Amino acid sequence: MTTETALFEIRLKVRDYECDLQGIVNNANYQHYLEHARHEFLRSIGLSFADYHYRGIDLVVTRVEIDYKTPLTSGDSFVVNLNMKKEGVRWLFFQEIWNEQSGKICVKAKIAAVAVVNGRPKNCAEIDEIFNKILAKKE
Amino acid sequence: MTTETALFEIRLKVRDYECDLQGIVNNANYQHYLEHARHEFLRSIGLSFADYHYRGIDLVVTRVEIDYKTPLTSGDSFVVNLNMKKEGVRWLFFQEIWNEQSGKICVKAKIAAVAVVNGRPKNCAEIDEIFNKILAKKE
Amino acid sequence: MTTETALFEIRLKVRDYECDLQGIVNNANYQHYLEHARHEFLRSIGLSFADYHYRGIDLVVTRVEIDYKTPLTSGDSFVVNLNMKKEGVRWLFFQEIWNEQSGKICVKAKIAAVAVVNGRPKNCAEIDEIFNKILAKKE
Amino acid sequence: MTTETALFEIRLKVRDYECDLQGIVNNANYQHYLEHARHEFLRSIGLSFADYHYRGIDLVVTRVEIDYKTPLTSGDSFVVNLNMKKEGVRWLFFQEIWNEQSGKICVKAKIAAVAVVNGRPKNCAEIDEIFNKILAKKE
Repeated sequence: MTTETALFEIRLKVRDYECDLQGIVNNANYQHYLEHARHEFLRSIGLSFADYHYRGIDLVVTRVEIDYKTPLTSGDSFVVNLNMKKEGVRWLFFQEIWNEQSGKICVKAKIAAVAVVNGRPKNCAEIDEIFNKILAKKE
Repeated sequence: MTTETALFEIRLKVRDYECDLQGIVNNANYQHYLEHARHEFLRSIGLSFADYHYRGIDLVVTRVEIDYKTPLTSGDSFVVNLNMKKEGVRWLFFQEIWNEQSGKICVKAKIAAVAVVNGRPKNCAEIDEIFNKILAKKE
Repeated sequence: MTTETALFEIRLKVRDYECDLQGIVNNANYQHYLEHARHEFLRSIGLSFADYHYRGIDLVVTRVEIDYKTPLTSGDSFVVNLNMKKEGVRWLFFQEIWNEQSGKICVKAKIAAVAVVNGRPKNCAEIDEIFNKILAKKE
Repeated sequence: MTTETALFEIRLKVRDYECDLQGIVNNANYQHYLEHARHEFLRSIGLSFADYHYRGIDLVVTRVEIDYKTPLTSGDSFVVNLNMKKEGVRWLFFQEIWNEQSGKICVKAKIAAVAVVNGRPKNCAEIDEIFNKILAKKE
């Protein structure tokens, strides 16, 4: 996925406290970067993760697959991008993290999420409509 | 403060991801340890930080003073303790973190907190009563 | 995997700061729990993740697959367990997180890790020998 | 302290995972923001926290005082600024966090740090010289 083919991307910079004693970004923190990119994407299309929660609709991750390719370290800038598609009740997010200095890929991830309404996974027409418009515009 | 004079204490163990690239526990994580000890103390006397929040009463920290004495590192076990007293509308928590292996003090902290009800700092009779019973029992 | 069939397990308790605005443990924190269980397992068999790093041998996660089943929330106690096997140069860890109150499974995970020596994935005879002894003892 | 009088400032945005179950940024995370601003300041004047560590010189926080004024929440953008002065062997950092939307101050902090060389607090001529040049330029 490149800047041209990605649906969305953000630029971030490693914060030193995100590195662990190996001197590289701790594995779990890439999940934070991926989540933040998804939530910023939602926000960019008018959907707030927080507001939906307070209205009783939770966007919930059900599965993550993350391949760790090359680590990020102190001082690195990086891009987190995403594409998405619907599969049954699930929305699949395909995400990558790229080191801007080295041009190397750091992480490739596939994240499955569902809307949970009153405790149950459910198609949420309102969210689907917005997502579908975005995907239609992209083609 | 010792195990005898402390109002409450918990034992924890450093988790490797809490260490940063200096190989020692990152400063902000000691604040996590201190918070967890306070919330476990609350729980031990029948007060749940989470339940109060959902009832519209938030226990909010207004000031922290933390002296960092000796660092914790990978593999260390430690004790987090606390004492407290009321001062005006504020509850003051005096907390320490002790390394169990070395016997050295790691952190000394003074944390001020208030109950916030409908967005305003306020004495909360219910919480004060429970705290006062605990303090009376200790004397 | 049960307490009887797991190679190793630890008991932990949710810390309130690990919960996000949905009121449940943030997804990335389960990865922290899983990592801490693996590192405590290593320590239990005489291998320190930190010491190996300082000797130039890094245990590096190359892939995670995590299924999120039911969330943990404020006050919950849980067990993190693990089993493992070798597959080529990789060690595979199979891990679960169980809620102790509800008895429900929270997370199922498969984590692939390699030893990286001088920047390259490599079989590390010393580590393999210790792992093999543990696995042999278990059978 | 304003943009004009501050020695340095960075702009950041709240990430949802930094909010806890109260729906606001968890107290310890402000320490992360303050640290990141200090490290970015160091980097901006040619000092890398990480490089110094690998050369055996650690910049270590010995005391923090943080006043929490108004909380940050999901979606907020904010500025973290800093000023500094020398006091004995310690460098004192005066820092603030301002909410960009509301214009309200969120946090006021005073952070004391020392250089630790071979395990002892020590004036580090190299670092002092760079800091002094920066401070002289500002006047």
